[in-house]
Amino acid sequence: MSTDYHPMWQELGLDLDAHDALLGVLGPLYEKTFLTQPNRPQGMDYFNFVMSEVHGLRVKELLDHKEKGGFVTGTFCTFVPEELVLAAGGICVGLCAGAEWSTPEVDALLPRTTCALIKGAFGFASARVCPYLAASDLVVGENTCDGKKKAWESFHRFVKELHVMDMPQVKNSTGHALLREQYGILLKKLEDVGGRKVTPEALEGAISTVNAKRRALARLTVLRQANPAPISGLDALLVQQVSFYDDPVRFTASVEALCDELEERVRQGKGVHEGRRPRLLMSGCPMAVPNWKLPHIVEQAGAIIVGEESCIGTRGLRNEVRQGSGGLDAQLEALTERYFAIDCAIFSPNPERQEHVVDMSATQQADGVIHFSLPFCTPYQSEALRMEPALEAGGLPVLRIDTDYSPEDAGQLSTRVEAFLERLEA
Amino acid sequence: MSTDYHPMWQELGLDLDAHDALLGVLGPLYEKTFLTQPNRPQGMDYFNFVMSEVHGLRVKELLDHKEKGGFVTGTFCTFVPEELVLAAGGICVGLCAGAEWSTPEVDALLPRTTCALIKGAFGFASARVCPYLAASDLVVGENTCDGKKKAWESFHRFVKELHVMDMPQVKNSTGHALLREQYGILLKKLEDVGGRKVTPEALEGAISTVNAKRRALARLTVLRQANPAPISGLDALLVQQVSFYDDPVRFTASVEALCDELEERVRQGKGVHEGRRPRLLMSGCPMAVPNWKLPHIVEQAGAIIVGEESCIGTRGLRNEVRQGSGGLDAQLEALTERYFAIDCAIFSPNPERQEHVVDMSATQQADGVIHFSLPFCTPYQSEALRMEPALEAGGLPVLRIDTDYSPEDAGQLSTRVEAFLERLEA
Repeated sequence: MSTDYHPMWQELGLDLDAHDALLGVLGPLYEKTFLTQPNRPQGMDYFNFVMSEVHGLRVKELLDHKEKGGFVTGTFCTFVPEELVLAAGGICVGLCAGAEWSTPEVDALLPRTTCALIKGAFGFASARVCPYLAASDLVVGENTCDGKKKAWESFHRFVKELHVMDMPQVKNSTGHALLREQYGILLKKLEDVGGRKVTPEALEGAISTVNAKRRALARLTVLRQANPAPISGLDALLVQQVSFYDDPVRFTASVEALCDELEERVRQGKGVHEGRRPRLLMSGCPMAVPNWKLPHIVEQAGAIIVGEESCIGTRGLRNEVRQGSGGLDAQLEALTERYFAIDCAIFSPNPERQEHVVDMSATQQADGVIHFSLPFCTPYQSEALRMEPALEAGGLPVLRIDTDYSPEDAGQLSTRVEAFLERLEA
Repeated sequence: MSTDYHPMWQELGLDLDAHDALLGVLGPLYEKTFLTQPNRPQGMDYFNFVMSEVHGLRVKELLDHKEKGGFVTGTFCTFVPEELVLAAGGICVGLCAGAEWSTPEVDALLPRTTCALIKGAFGFASARVCPYLAASDLVVGENTCDGKKKAWESFHRFVKELHVMDMPQVKNSTGHALLREQYGILLKKLEDVGGRKVTPEALEGAISTVNAKRRALARLTVLRQANPAPISGLDALLVQQVSFYDDPVRFTASVEALCDELEERVRQGKGVHEGRRPRLLMSGCPMAVPNWKLPHIVEQAGAIIVGEESCIGTRGLRNEVRQGSGGLDAQLEALTERYFAIDCAIFSPNPERQEHVVDMSATQQADGVIHFSLPFCTPYQSEALRMEPALEAGGLPVLRIDTDYSPEDAGQLSTRVEAFLERLEA
C-alpha cells in the first residue's frame, strides 16, 4: 500500500497493533501462495492490486461512499441479495471470516465445537481487526446453520446494527414464501438505514449490475472447461473471493478483461501449466479470504482445480435474476426465485446439489472431486458422507477432507492429496 | 420379564443376540441406579414394572393394538403432538436414543461430530435392537437442529415410513403459521396411515387425554417444590421418561397415585432423604432412557434434583392445549398455540428459556442449576454459554456440563459435581 492508512484504521476503531500484525502475516502468505505461481495471466495484476489494498484503498472507498450519504452493509452469506443493498444506496461487502483469530471473549461466547468460519468472524470482530465490519452500518445475518443462528444472539455487541434474516429449511412453496417475506423485510430495513425509498428503477439497475457480475464469473467458469485450463484454480478462486469485496462494476470489467485474455490462451491451446495435470473440482464449504490452504496444497501437488462448487464459487454465483419483471413486488419475487434455487446444504432434502456436482464435474472435465468441509459443519459434512459413495459408484473419485484454518495438518493433507492424485493417474 | 418374548422380537426382526446383550446391560444398570435408592415411594413399583417390561409387555401391547387395526408412530421430539396420533387411532412412542450403540453402517452415515442422541438413534436402528422402531408403522422426524435435519435424509433405510415435519426457527406469526401448516400435513399423513378420518370428537378426546397426562406430571413437579423433597430426582426423571412409552391413561392414573402418596409425605414433612440436601435444577438437553448418568452422579454426591428443564421435563410437558375450541381447524390452532410456546433452543432468539430457568429455580427452591449439554449440540451449548454468566450474575450458581453417554468421564464428573456442591454449601 502506497498510502499510510493508519489514521483511517484508527478512526474506525481498529486495534492498530493487532491489525498491523495481521497484515504482516497476510502479505507474505499472499505472496507465497499467489505470486510464486507460474505463467499467471496479466489480468491477475488487477486482483493482486485489489488484494494489496484490501484493507486500504477499498476501505477508503467505503468511507468515501458513507461520506457522500451512502452506507455499507456487511454480510456472511450468499443468501443476502447484493441487489437490494445496491438499490438502497449501499455497498455490500463480505466480512472477515477466513482466518483463525481467537480471543477470550470469543471463547466465552461460542461453543468450542463451532466451525472455523464463525469463530473467525467472531475473532476478527472481537480483536477489532476487520475494517469492513468497522465500516458497516448494518450487518445482515441469516438463520442458515445452527452455528450461525445461535451465534447472532451474541454478535450484537460487535456491530452498529444487526439484522437477522430467517431462512427456510425446505424447498417447497412455504419455504419460498418465507424467503420472499424476508427479502421484503430486508428491503425495508435497508431503506431505513439508507434513508431513502428503493424505486423499481434503482432495483432494476442493481439487478442488472449483479447479473453482469455473475455473467462475467460464469464466463470465467466456462473458460476453465478448456483442457489445458488457462488459469490456476487458486487465481480463479481469488477472483471469486474478490467479488465479495470489490466495486461490482469495476470488478465485472476486470473479470471480463481477464476472460478476454484467457479466451486467447484457450484459442491458442495454451494452458497455465505445461503438460497434462489431473483436473479437480472443489466442492463443499465456502473458502473465505485468506483460506487458501487446501487449494494451495492441491495445486502444489501437481493438480489443477477447474471449478468451485461452493458459496464462493458456482453455488453463490450461478443463475441470474430475471429482469424486466415490473414493479418492486415482481422484482422481489424474481430475486426470491434466483436465491431460493441455491442448493445450500441447510436445505433438507437437497438432492440438487449432488446432481450439480456430477454435472459440473462433467462440464469442467474434472477427473475427480475434493469435498472440503469445515470441522463441525454438520450440513456439509452430512452431505459429503452420502455424496462420496454415490459419486464413486458413478465412477467419479472423491477425496473427502475436513480441515479448518490451522496450518497444523498441512503435511498430512499433502500426503492424502498426493495419494488421491496417484489414484487418479493409475 | 415373566414371559419369553424372544418369538415376538424375532417376528419384529430384531437381532436377538445383540438385543439380549442390550437387556443384559440395561437390567443391572437399572437396578444399580434406581433400586438401590433409599425410601422410594411405593408408587414407583409401577414404574419399576414398566421398565422391567419396557421391551416386553409394552411392545406386545403395541402389536396387539396393530392387530386390532391400530398403528404405531415413533418419534424423537416433543414437537410431535401425541394428540394427533391418538386421535388417528395410533399409539405414540418415543424411540430408543439414550445409549451408545455404534455400527460401521452408522459411522458411514453420520459425521463423527454428531450428538450422542442422534448417534444412539441410528445405532439402535442399525443394530436392530429397538423394538419400538421395529413396531412403528410411521416415524415422524422434524427439522429441529442441523444434526437431525440432515440425519433424516439417511434414516429412511431403517423405517417402514418416515415423515419429516419442517420446523420454524423464529417465534413470529410466520413461524406460527409454518407449525400450524405442518400439523395439518401431519394429521393427513396420520389419517392415511391409520386408514380413517380424524373427527373433532376424537381429537378432543385425545387432547383431553394428553392434557390429563401433562396435568399429572405438573402435579409431580409441584410436589417436588416441597422442602424436603418427597421423591428423588432420578425417580421423577424416570416417571417423565416413561411418559414417552406408556399408555397415556394408565400412566396418568399411576402418576396421580404416586402423587397422592407424595402429597401425604409432604403433609407429614417427610422427605425422601434424611436431613438437608442441596437442591438442584437440571436444565438442558433431553435425557432419553437409559441416560441416567449425570442425575445418578449428582444424587450420589449428596444433592437432590428438584426439577428438569428439558424436553423430558417441563419444556415438553408444561402448558395444556386449550380445549373446547370447536372443529378441527380450531383444534389444530389450539395445538399449535401450545406447542409453539415450547422454548426449545432451536428458536432464535429464545429468551423465554432463560426466564423459565430462573422462574423454575425459584419455584422449585433450587440452590443452583446444572446445565447439561450433549457434546456437538450447538443450540443448547450456545445458550448454556450465555445462561451461565447471566444466572450467576443474578446470584444463581450454575455448573455447565457437556457429556455424552459414555461412562468414561464419570469420575471427572463426580469431582466437578462435588466441587459445585461444596460451593453451594459454603
